[in-house]
Amino acid sequence: MSLLLLQLLRGAGGLLRRCPRSRAASRRGLSSSSSSGGGAGLRPGQRSLLAGLAGTAAALAGLGLVRRAEMVSRESVAPGGGSEEDELSRQCEGFMAPPVSAMRELQSRRQDMQSRMELLIMETQSQVCRALAQVDGGAVFTVDRWERKEGGGGISCVLQDGNIFEKAGVNVSVVFGHLSEEAAQQMRSRGKTLKTKNGKLPFCAMGVSSVIHPKNPHVPTIHFNYRYFEIEEADGTKQWWFGGGTDLTPTYLNKEDAVHFHKTLKEACDQHNLELYPKYKKWCDDYFYIKHRGERRGIGGIFFDDLDSPSKEEAFQFVQSCAKAIVPCYIPIVKKHAQDSFTPEEKLWQQLRRGRYVEFNLVYDRGTKFGLATPGSRIESILMSLPLTARWEYMHMPPEKSREAEILEVLRNPKDWVH
Amino acid sequence: MSLLLLQLLRGAGGLLRRCPRSRAASRRGLSSSSSSGGGAGLRPGQRSLLAGLAGTAAALAGLGLVRRAEMVSRESVAPGGGSEEDELSRQCEGFMAPPVSAMRELQSRRQDMQSRMELLIMETQSQVCRALAQVDGGAVFTVDRWERKEGGGGISCVLQDGNIFEKAGVNVSVVFGHLSEEAAQQMRSRGKTLKTKNGKLPFCAMGVSSVIHPKNPHVPTIHFNYRYFEIEEADGTKQWWFGGGTDLTPTYLNKEDAVHFHKTLKEACDQHNLELYPKYKKWCDDYFYIKHRGERRGIGGIFFDDLDSPSKEEAFQFVQSCAKAIVPCYIPIVKKHAQDSFTPEEKLWQQLRRGRYVEFNLVYDRGTKFGLATPGSRIESILMSLPLTARWEYMHMPPEKSREAEILEVLRNPKDWVH
Repeated sequence: MSLLLLQLLRGAGGLLRRCPRSRAASRRGLSSSSSSGGGAGLRPGQRSLLAGLAGTAAALAGLGLVRRAEMVSRESVAPGGGSEEDELSRQCEGFMAPPVSAMRELQSRRQDMQSRMELLIMETQSQVCRALAQVDGGAVFTVDRWERKEGGGGISCVLQDGNIFEKAGVNVSVVFGHLSEEAAQQMRSRGKTLKTKNGKLPFCAMGVSSVIHPKNPHVPTIHFNYRYFEIEEADGTKQWWFGGGTDLTPTYLNKEDAVHFHKTLKEACDQHNLELYPKYKKWCDDYFYIKHRGERRGIGGIFFDDLDSPSKEEAFQFVQSCAKAIVPCYIPIVKKHAQDSFTPEEKLWQQLRRGRYVEFNLVYDRGTKFGLATPGSRIESILMSLPLTARWEYMHMPPEKSREAEILEVLRNPKDWVH
Repeated sequence: MSLLLLQLLRGAGGLLRRCPRSRAASRRGLSSSSSSGGGAGLRPGQRSLLAGLAGTAAALAGLGLVRRAEMVSRESVAPGGGSEEDELSRQCEGFMAPPVSAMRELQSRRQDMQSRMELLIMETQSQVCRALAQVDGGAVFTVDRWERKEGGGGISCVLQDGNIFEKAGVNVSVVFGHLSEEAAQQMRSRGKTLKTKNGKLPFCAMGVSSVIHPKNPHVPTIHFNYRYFEIEEADGTKQWWFGGGTDLTPTYLNKEDAVHFHKTLKEACDQHNLELYPKYKKWCDDYFYIKHRGERRGIGGIFFDDLDSPSKEEAFQFVQSCAKAIVPCYIPIVKKHAQDSFTPEEKLWQQLRRGRYVEFNLVYDRGTKFGLATPGSRIESILMSLPLTARWEYMHMPPEKSREAEILEVLRNPKDWVH
């Protein structure tokens, strides 16, 4: 269910109703959309903080689903004042856009997990985007700040057709409102019994999610996602949990890279509990499984959901370690192979593997499926995970003992990379 | 349910068990596969009748799902003899491969609907493949004849990287066995009450299905499928019905082509009942709907299911008219535009539309979804419908009043092309 709820992070509407906090937020920093389908609204006087935004024709208005929201200017969200506020302002200046929650709100509940997690996902988005832009050496991220009519919004950063990266998206969403009766029932099927008040459950959900598809077939695709949920029951009890993961999808197997990737993740996990990496490594192999092909999508990594122990603080610390591991587990691999030469045949194999990526995301990924089925979803953010291009050939089968057969073998029989 | 069952036509296993007729067929013309996953088996001495087969490395054996079956030589299935047999033999000589059912069996039940429909779908496959090969002027169809362990088999004809066609597949399947309790329940939800004998229902399902993706963005993609089902209840009552349709997916709108396509289909329908075309045109627009985009996959055509009136004979005659309309509704459009010049921008728009095609087929198409979820399915035949290449760009939005916006408008608001 957490993965399903994750789509709510991406601007899903329909299921959720406006709640008091949503109204407060829209008074403070976010404009309310007048479009009927939910999603984002354009605010007079908003302007782009980053180049590239104006370059792309901006709307899916014809679909009636979403509009692109340019960013609120930084001045409007940095109120100035005391030194604590100054510190928060400085931190936010490093972000790709102002946070979804208003600065005053973040300031007033600085120690709450909601605020801390929102700052962590904003920080992660910023670190990853800057690291990618730097290694790409020229490409600029398009930054879309969108709002969700029912409460909250998000920031989508997308780089297309760079020097190194074909398509790289890093999304942040912070969504709140009330879970519908239907969604609440799905929660119960997750093993939790939630006591609703008149069939409603106030909730808050936030996360950062990303898929990076490079051009060179010797540079692997990475996906990561870290998320946090809070639900308030009728008696005021708060249920909370974290979920997330980071996984790698190479076109060709490079054992050294696989070991580096998994070791970096393992080190992040081991700081907290030695049982985490093996458990979440297996969960990752199990989740990213293209059943009809008998193949995993990639060489795995870590994946977890419903994490609500040993304490909120410790779970957050663990998620923070995972988020901080993204750049060191991936960027060195990018740098190492960015200039590798490749043949047209290798590019073709990459395209066929991209086809498998599409198959997994559209057929199996619970978040994608739930998002597509939710009225008012921000489709462009959900499908940002799809590669720029993909290919399907009838009965393609690489020769035995080829490098193409080598990676297939690993996708069919996941390996232990760290022992 | 008929559409779901359609996947059984494509070599699905798992759900079905061997029945007496299946054993008879395997004694006569089809070898029984030794592979565990169902699908096809290689038979010693089998050889290809058409060039192109040997060129492609042949197996997905590593997946344990299917093996490519080369064709039974024509001699082995043309027993010779009386003049009726000679006539049937001559008819079969025009096919892309010998029919799935043995010649003697087809001969002995020449007037049964099963035989007549099998000959119709074989004939349709042959006519379409030959018309496509002729207009392509060089490309050759790869012909795979595969068997289904549980009963029946199929013939997949695929052309890749031709002069005109990027990827064209025309599949025939003839499958029989017993429906499982689960499948029988799905039947009941279709509105039919079926009386099982010990929870089993002998069935026979057959059809021809095809997707043709051309290279030139001014030549549209076509899809068609015609199918027949028979189910025998405990008391010996036979339930039967037909389903099918033909629909067009252009990259750019050409009104003249749209009118020609729909008029040709309407004429085929009107020979039988003037109510058929409007009813099946609307059904087509409703079925091929990409809900999350608010767009139809293409400009429609006809689509119908559960057709069991006014009589078996009349329903068959109607299906025959539809099948015969495929070549005249499509090939003139191909010929008209095959040499049209196009820009890189037009090719790019075609690739984006191909992305939508993939979205429909993987997210919504009931046959595809059911097939992928069925253990032992022949995945390569199911996913043959996917284009060779596809593309996804974040927030792509064609300029107002462009030719790209023109087709989008029609996909969002289907038009009446014949009045």
